[in-house]
Amino acid sequence: MSTENYSPTLLQFLKAPAKAVNQTIYTAAQQRQQQLTKPPGSLGQLETLAIRLASLQATHAPKIQKLAIRIFAADHGVVEEGVSAFPQSVTGEMIKNFASGGAAICVLANFLAADFGVINLGTVTPLPALEHVTDRRIRAGTHNFTQAPAMSEAELEQALLAGRQTVLAAKESQVDLYIGGEMGIGNTTSASALACALMQQNPDALVGRGTGVDDAGIQRKISAVTRALALHQDALSSPLACLQTLGGLEIAALVGAIVACAQEGIPVMIDGFIASAAALVALAINPAIKPWLIFSHCSAEAGHAAMLEYLQAEPLLRLNMRLGEASGAAIAVPLLQMACELHSNMATFEQAGVSH
Amino acid sequence: MSTENYSPTLLQFLKAPAKAVNQTIYTAAQQRQQQLTKPPGSLGQLETLAIRLASLQATHAPKIQKLAIRIFAADHGVVEEGVSAFPQSVTGEMIKNFASGGAAICVLANFLAADFGVINLGTVTPLPALEHVTDRRIRAGTHNFTQAPAMSEAELEQALLAGRQTVLAAKESQVDLYIGGEMGIGNTTSASALACALMQQNPDALVGRGTGVDDAGIQRKISAVTRALALHQDALSSPLACLQTLGGLEIAALVGAIVACAQEGIPVMIDGFIASAAALVALAINPAIKPWLIFSHCSAEAGHAAMLEYLQAEPLLRLNMRLGEASGAAIAVPLLQMACELHSNMATFEQAGVSH
Repeated sequence: MSTENYSPTLLQFLKAPAKAVNQTIYTAAQQRQQQLTKPPGSLGQLETLAIRLASLQATHAPKIQKLAIRIFAADHGVVEEGVSAFPQSVTGEMIKNFASGGAAICVLANFLAADFGVINLGTVTPLPALEHVTDRRIRAGTHNFTQAPAMSEAELEQALLAGRQTVLAAKESQVDLYIGGEMGIGNTTSASALACALMQQNPDALVGRGTGVDDAGIQRKISAVTRALALHQDALSSPLACLQTLGGLEIAALVGAIVACAQEGIPVMIDGFIASAAALVALAINPAIKPWLIFSHCSAEAGHAAMLEYLQAEPLLRLNMRLGEASGAAIAVPLLQMACELHSNMATFEQAGVSH
Repeated sequence: MSTENYSPTLLQFLKAPAKAVNQTIYTAAQQRQQQLTKPPGSLGQLETLAIRLASLQATHAPKIQKLAIRIFAADHGVVEEGVSAFPQSVTGEMIKNFASGGAAICVLANFLAADFGVINLGTVTPLPALEHVTDRRIRAGTHNFTQAPAMSEAELEQALLAGRQTVLAAKESQVDLYIGGEMGIGNTTSASALACALMQQNPDALVGRGTGVDDAGIQRKISAVTRALALHQDALSSPLACLQTLGGLEIAALVGAIVACAQEGIPVMIDGFIASAAALVALAINPAIKPWLIFSHCSAEAGHAAMLEYLQAEPLLRLNMRLGEASGAAIAVPLLQMACELHSNMATFEQAGVSH
């Protein structure tokens, strides 16, 4: 890492090893799947999921019961460039909608009986106290990164640690799965910029319609990302520097949460385009966290498929979703639950007296 | 239909119109999706699912709570040709496994709190009385269709009506969704033969590994289908004649169930390769049933993708499953449930005070 101004404590956190995966249980789970009353391999991705979850949770009976869903929210200075179909006020308005239970993720969290919380890392204006919402406002949105780095080193550090903090709390509550989501008008532009910097690709390959901009909006997004990459080219010398320069406060918090999940031994479900950009940064900083990341879906956002391919990630769902706020990750939870149930509760050929 | 020997009562059932879809509610549901607090279209297939289910159930608050899962089981004479990786005894052994709760679909039915039942249409040997299993044994498996028609007209009729009967009972219980699955060693060969006859394609495009045959097994399957199509070419003059000649008793029951679901106004979830072959026959007999069929997944079985494309069906999942016994359909149920929850319980822009 060439940028040396980050605090040693921060770097120590980010670089600390992920919890080791239990290889003995991995092998045992593979063998068990061969003995269950079905043609070997016939449960497809549900088999590999169950085997992974068994090895991550280090148990012969993996389960996904206790869920933490955390939404990180913040505003983006780059919205000035006309990159979103929605006004910036929607970030704060949606936080209120999260608080009152009207957003998609609230409905899904309720369906899944998940513990749900929102962390405000930096709306442009302060918000009143709201149910389910924790105020960790670092600044009034990021700087417009076409003109200046999105945040300072100190602000980046605060955001990363705020993300980590939610994971430490989730660990206290012994959650089986952590889901991190995001809300922030303008954040597909930030995510695209990060992806371009880290994947060394052109903006037109990784910029999409976000919440639904028209063709002119797409051109403004491409232009903003192109100008930012040119302006900051010397500064983009490490994943962490890219995150500070082009990221969002909520994306940085997600990076901190993803890294911490792997270190604390909590499987973490990755949502859509923006969460995957956070995963991209997290993996670039600390590649050993990979086994702990479960990629939920490939979204309709242009560039997400390329990002997943770059990460060699095999998403579970392709439903043309593009909402963010952890909705795609939440939708995938029952697949994990059913994979675990099948693994633990199906009869073996021997138990059932079935020929094979 | 050129084969005129089927009973008028049977033909009347099969050709009777599907229940009409409620177009007023369809339009209202589309409008509601535009007003919910999310970018329009951002829930992807979950939006179209919710809109469809609202119009099928003719309600502004669609729901998938009460589920019926029915597994149709029977044996296949074509197993003599060496077309399966498992011995024929497994059909009966798996029915016992269904009865004792050890099969994949039992675990999933339990997870979904679904009403679960198995109908034995024709194992080679009779089975003792078993919990969850209804004996509707028509004959000791089908004839080997490389040598003779799989079943007689009367047997076909019995199987179709047995499938229908389960739907009429499900309607009594006011189920929100019907899932039909199958078990029958050798039945991918029957399904492939049906698909070849109805899609006018060559066996090598529609024959796959089933439960896991090797390359020589694939060749035996292709050979069996090729010989059957040649032997019966004059008899394959209608979808119903194809079903009688090349089908299985459990496939025929599935056809009857699918048609009846559409007529009785119950959405029916289609499982994998064999259930899709039944849907193919059902749609060829009565194309108006189409709106009632929800295609759950694209399996790993070679030929399923081609079959779904032929049917212009957009499956919800692609998880490389290939187990049958309704497992893929069951796995997709939570997607429907969550689509309904989102449709009914998300706040509108107006309710939440979110700009748009």
